[in-house]
Amino acid sequence: MIQPRTLKGFRDFLPEAMLPRERLIDTARRVYRSYGYSPIDTPALEYLEILSGKGSDETDKQLYRFRDHGGRDVALRFDLTVPAARFTAQHINELPVPFKRYHIATVWRGENTQRGRYREFMQCDFDTIGTASPAADIETALVIHDLFRALGFERFVIRVNNRRVLNGLLEKLDLSDRAVPILRAIDKLAKIGPEGVAAEMISTAQVSQQQADDILKLVSLEGTNDAILAELDRLTEGSETGRQGVGELRDLIAAVGAAGVPEARIQIDVAIARGLDYYTGTIYETFLDDLPGIGSVCSGGRYDNLTGLFTKQVLP
Amino acid sequence: MIQPRTLKGFRDFLPEAMLPRERLIDTARRVYRSYGYSPIDTPALEYLEILSGKGSDETDKQLYRFRDHGGRDVALRFDLTVPAARFTAQHINELPVPFKRYHIATVWRGENTQRGRYREFMQCDFDTIGTASPAADIETALVIHDLFRALGFERFVIRVNNRRVLNGLLEKLDLSDRAVPILRAIDKLAKIGPEGVAAEMISTAQVSQQQADDILKLVSLEGTNDAILAELDRLTEGSETGRQGVGELRDLIAAVGAAGVPEARIQIDVAIARGLDYYTGTIYETFLDDLPGIGSVCSGGRYDNLTGLFTKQVLP
Repeated sequence: MIQPRTLKGFRDFLPEAMLPRERLIDTARRVYRSYGYSPIDTPALEYLEILSGKGSDETDKQLYRFRDHGGRDVALRFDLTVPAARFTAQHINELPVPFKRYHIATVWRGENTQRGRYREFMQCDFDTIGTASPAADIETALVIHDLFRALGFERFVIRVNNRRVLNGLLEKLDLSDRAVPILRAIDKLAKIGPEGVAAEMISTAQVSQQQADDILKLVSLEGTNDAILAELDRLTEGSETGRQGVGELRDLIAAVGAAGVPEARIQIDVAIARGLDYYTGTIYETFLDDLPGIGSVCSGGRYDNLTGLFTKQVLP
Repeated sequence: MIQPRTLKGFRDFLPEAMLPRERLIDTARRVYRSYGYSPIDTPALEYLEILSGKGSDETDKQLYRFRDHGGRDVALRFDLTVPAARFTAQHINELPVPFKRYHIATVWRGENTQRGRYREFMQCDFDTIGTASPAADIETALVIHDLFRALGFERFVIRVNNRRVLNGLLEKLDLSDRAVPILRAIDKLAKIGPEGVAAEMISTAQVSQQQADDILKLVSLEGTNDAILAELDRLTEGSETGRQGVGELRDLIAAVGAAGVPEARIQIDVAIARGLDYYTGTIYETFLDDLPGIGSVCSGGRYDNLTGLFTKQVLP
């Protein structure tokens, strides 16, 4: 007799867990469709070279990879973003542009299991591809807001930031070439605190104590959106990139507010850095007021160059 | 730049293919739920020993298997039936019995690609577990019928048979020990014709030409359900197993007819053998009148012993 068991980090869903999961997926689909997003699907298994093309060394290590019967190096998808970039590059001539897609599917990560982290889980992605317009960023915030309302949440906050704000400050501090390790350290602020972030930046990005202090001052800004924007204007003075980022944030906050989203639900948070390399503009994280411990439950941002791995066409 | 491409046998779904696919899944779910089936899900990746526990050598060869980071032998699920047996054995104390489950999910088979066969595809399974009652077999036929009507089909036929009819004849011919290769040969009747089946049975199961002729006579029966039943009564005379199978078929046809399914849509077909070893009673295949070339689009049957791989509890 074979012992019936599942692999560590993998789960069975019994009806009492599966019924609400089906309802959640239906709700996400309904909200996405109401904004004109269309469904796509891509294979779970792809050529390794495609999946390890972008992301980070850390994500590469977590890929379930193997050699198939035909001797090809293949892997299970780690997220839905890199497959989306591959998909768009491959099919762009068959797709409307901008292309608004949603993709609700399983992803796999061979990472160490810990509370609330699984090796197999579902993502409910949506993206707008092929437009540099800030309207897409505004719409993204509205979709997140509607999605959480439709799921029955009232007490949540969408935290927004803009990579250009951070990049602008790094430019001023002459640290642009070390952006990746610095952003990764900032991303851990809630977990390891300001001293931890400073120590990590000093050790992994060789910044000085003074530079670390300047960065921490920026990412520790608190207050109303207006107060933060005013402070950011001052801190990014002299950096074209930084000023552009602040301008985009200001426009986003104004538009989303005008659309009826209360300020309590959309807040600028300069500490939101998003560890992945590929983000270029607005970034988002969403927190449930009543479950702060679980971290962001809906994250993403603008990445204007990812399809560049697969095609020369510019598809922001 | 990386060439954007998918693996052979794997597909991207663009919105024009994905929208009807989402509708199909919704329809299946609605029909299954209307009969009281509940959703479950199981991991895509399982211990190899669990997935290769049953099925056949042929299915084992098609498993995508590899060793994970922790050195475990794992594989992508080949179907949803073996995982269902593992799931039921593992969770039986948390489940109502009989347990009626549906499971709509992706499966992977590393087989040679050919027209209409993919290495990744979706199955829309449903099963009743934990009852030997013929009512479950009748309900299964009604669910298949309602599902195809709900999908918009009018011209289709559910072909039914019973393993006990075939086993009864093999008993009479003293061939019970060679049932597996014989059933596998019969299953190819539509593809390779009676001479092909006879040749295969003679070579793989060492049956005599006379035995082959007797088997082919049985599986070539044609006519109305009543005419076939009368003929089956005669051919299985003297075999308790065979007579039980014919009785179950007769009751099934009567009940499904009484429920309003026209005879054109439910037909006894003794040539339906279902290659897999684990079937024990009623078996089903469904054909679309307007697309005969694609073969059965909804197949299955009763298997009373599959959970026996994983538990001593009897869960038919």
